[in-house]
Amino acid sequence: MEELQKRILDSMPAIERWFRLEWMEHTPLFYSAVDIRNAGYKLSPVDLDLYPGQWHRLTADMVPLAVQAAMAGIEKICPEARNLMLIPDHRIHESEYQHSLAQLLRIFHMAGFNVRVGSIDPNLTETRDIAIAQGAGFTIEPVLREGQRLQLKHFDPCTLLLNHDLGQGIPGILEDLVGQYLLPPLHGAWATRQRGDFGVAYEDLAKRFGKLLGVDPWLISPMCHTTDVLDVNVAGERQQLADQVDELLQKIKRKYRDYSIDDTPVVVVKANQGRDATGLFSVSDARQIQADAVAKSSPGLSSARDGRWLLQEGVDTHTDAMGISDDPVVYMIDRYVVGGFYRTDEPVVMAPQTSAGVSDTGHNRFYVYGVIARLAMLAGSYQLEATDPQAHLFD
Amino acid sequence: MEELQKRILDSMPAIERWFRLEWMEHTPLFYSAVDIRNAGYKLSPVDLDLYPGQWHRLTADMVPLAVQAAMAGIEKICPEARNLMLIPDHRIHESEYQHSLAQLLRIFHMAGFNVRVGSIDPNLTETRDIAIAQGAGFTIEPVLREGQRLQLKHFDPCTLLLNHDLGQGIPGILEDLVGQYLLPPLHGAWATRQRGDFGVAYEDLAKRFGKLLGVDPWLISPMCHTTDVLDVNVAGERQQLADQVDELLQKIKRKYRDYSIDDTPVVVVKANQGRDATGLFSVSDARQIQADAVAKSSPGLSSARDGRWLLQEGVDTHTDAMGISDDPVVYMIDRYVVGGFYRTDEPVVMAPQTSAGVSDTGHNRFYVYGVIARLAMLAGSYQLEATDPQAHLFD
Repeated sequence: MEELQKRILDSMPAIERWFRLEWMEHTPLFYSAVDIRNAGYKLSPVDLDLYPGQWHRLTADMVPLAVQAAMAGIEKICPEARNLMLIPDHRIHESEYQHSLAQLLRIFHMAGFNVRVGSIDPNLTETRDIAIAQGAGFTIEPVLREGQRLQLKHFDPCTLLLNHDLGQGIPGILEDLVGQYLLPPLHGAWATRQRGDFGVAYEDLAKRFGKLLGVDPWLISPMCHTTDVLDVNVAGERQQLADQVDELLQKIKRKYRDYSIDDTPVVVVKANQGRDATGLFSVSDARQIQADAVAKSSPGLSSARDGRWLLQEGVDTHTDAMGISDDPVVYMIDRYVVGGFYRTDEPVVMAPQTSAGVSDTGHNRFYVYGVIARLAMLAGSYQLEATDPQAHLFD
Repeated sequence: MEELQKRILDSMPAIERWFRLEWMEHTPLFYSAVDIRNAGYKLSPVDLDLYPGQWHRLTADMVPLAVQAAMAGIEKICPEARNLMLIPDHRIHESEYQHSLAQLLRIFHMAGFNVRVGSIDPNLTETRDIAIAQGAGFTIEPVLREGQRLQLKHFDPCTLLLNHDLGQGIPGILEDLVGQYLLPPLHGAWATRQRGDFGVAYEDLAKRFGKLLGVDPWLISPMCHTTDVLDVNVAGERQQLADQVDELLQKIKRKYRDYSIDDTPVVVVKANQGRDATGLFSVSDARQIQADAVAKSSPGLSSARDGRWLLQEGVDTHTDAMGISDDPVVYMIDRYVVGGFYRTDEPVVMAPQTSAGVSDTGHNRFYVYGVIARLAMLAGSYQLEATDPQAHLFD
């Protein structure tokens, strides 16, 4: 890890240039968050969130960076932008999520937008005022579909920003909009987005990035494999899944041997499609897949949307020399890392560019996390491009 | 002033959008600083510096903003950028200036560049190490002209960033470079840049901006007038200068009457061309121009480079209700305000986008200063476009 970090820091100009050139060809996600696992010997992004919901955990120091990045981001999409509608999800009744929305509203207001909150929840039929403890509250209004545009009363936004993962499917009210920018695009929704596509995109990028740095790409990516459609309730298909899990476990074991890592290989079995928690299951022995009892005890395992499975090398969290054992989350707007925090800790400034200088261990670590997060975000960008249903229009 | 501030804050989305649209047509200065005078009843930019030299006065909080803005700025000019050469001025022997350069180097390093310092001072013939108290020092090397490129030993930059105002004229070593970006362009040098052009560009912008806000543009701009070539050593021409000064004094007096301002109108007489201090002279009575004694006591008055004079309404500094009486300086990179400070005070965070929220008086004030500074920077951008000797190539 020390060596990987050193390699990344020494290659900073090459890395930044590489990202700049990538962003000439590919469009960064408007906003995103990446969960990173630091195993001590390797780093791995475990989740790319296209609808981040913990903006309130960014500290006051990070907000100006977020505002500046939002200005840069919107400028490329729609410089004429004036009105922006933020579309929240069902958590609108939870205090934490309300704080997150309030922070997002603050960021966009400071970036110079008229921003209002429009709910697509059919149960919300009246305007509601949300009070925020020690902060400015906001109003949530039911959206109005006017022809092929989504509006609020006396408010016609040019940009609609989803903070709703559409995990239950894509509501008709969001379909066939004309003349409005919908971010992220509908095909980014968990209802259609496939984990395996992201895994492949990230693996490819990690390979190229590993070559740039001169390091084994395994040190920055989990091994993964997407199965065919397999029904775990059918013995033969369950066996096929177990075989493929075992194959991946053996590959991990070989890597561990190469690197003298004294860990038990684990494979995480996820539904290829659907929300985060769906069908999440960790096994260290393929026989665990065999046992009906285990299959029954994890009902999610049989609910994979498209019937396929993503098998992914499990990357464990290790406590590092700095005593940090929690998983970092990196928040980005446009191509910029605007901050981050640890899942279970107090927020910590995680901007790559702090004035603390290059010699500071903590800040160096955050730069490294920021690089991995941007790599994951770029993979998400590749994935959205590859799966764009309108891509043929530009061919 | 309260009303002007309120108008600016209330129009924030319209203002930000207006700037975004301007930047679609015009190129922001790569970096710049604007000195602002706050008279209590009006705001006025008094200087646009294309070669800011007090980067060390930006606080640690501001550095990440500067880094992010530098990333955005370079991306538009030259995404392939790898190596950047910073060209300092004669103050390289002064400790303050060394700190400023060290800060700039830190910013560009964190933005992902190989950055080195190359001096065009013909007296500097050997590499020199500069030590910085409590910070990373740097090395300054003599530039090498290789054909039509400027290089350092084993260092071929794609971008040359001038931190040298070329007030003494443009050295041949900087002329006719091919395939390298020179920022700011040579015609931005004080050797050729004319104050009057900037004054006219700013006045035009202030008019349009005043219309956008619904305020008298005089509240954000000084009245000014550029004379013909006038030799103050010739009685008749001196009389013409005095007449024109008097005319401007009368115009200011009328404005003061309209706004019930109990101040003595002052006109600042500046050489239209040349470094800041050249020919700077304030008069509250046109007869002061007449008196030979006065003319003799201010030798600069006769040394205007192109023989023309910029007459500008003097805007005095008033102590405001917050007890702040010093003149703010706003630092920008690309289109972004990255920070600021007061001329004689400790640095204060002056980012427009702070998390302190819209209700905070201090931060609101800084947003307003940032707007005026960006307006001045935009005027500089118009000026450079209008005076570009190669502009005919694009016609």
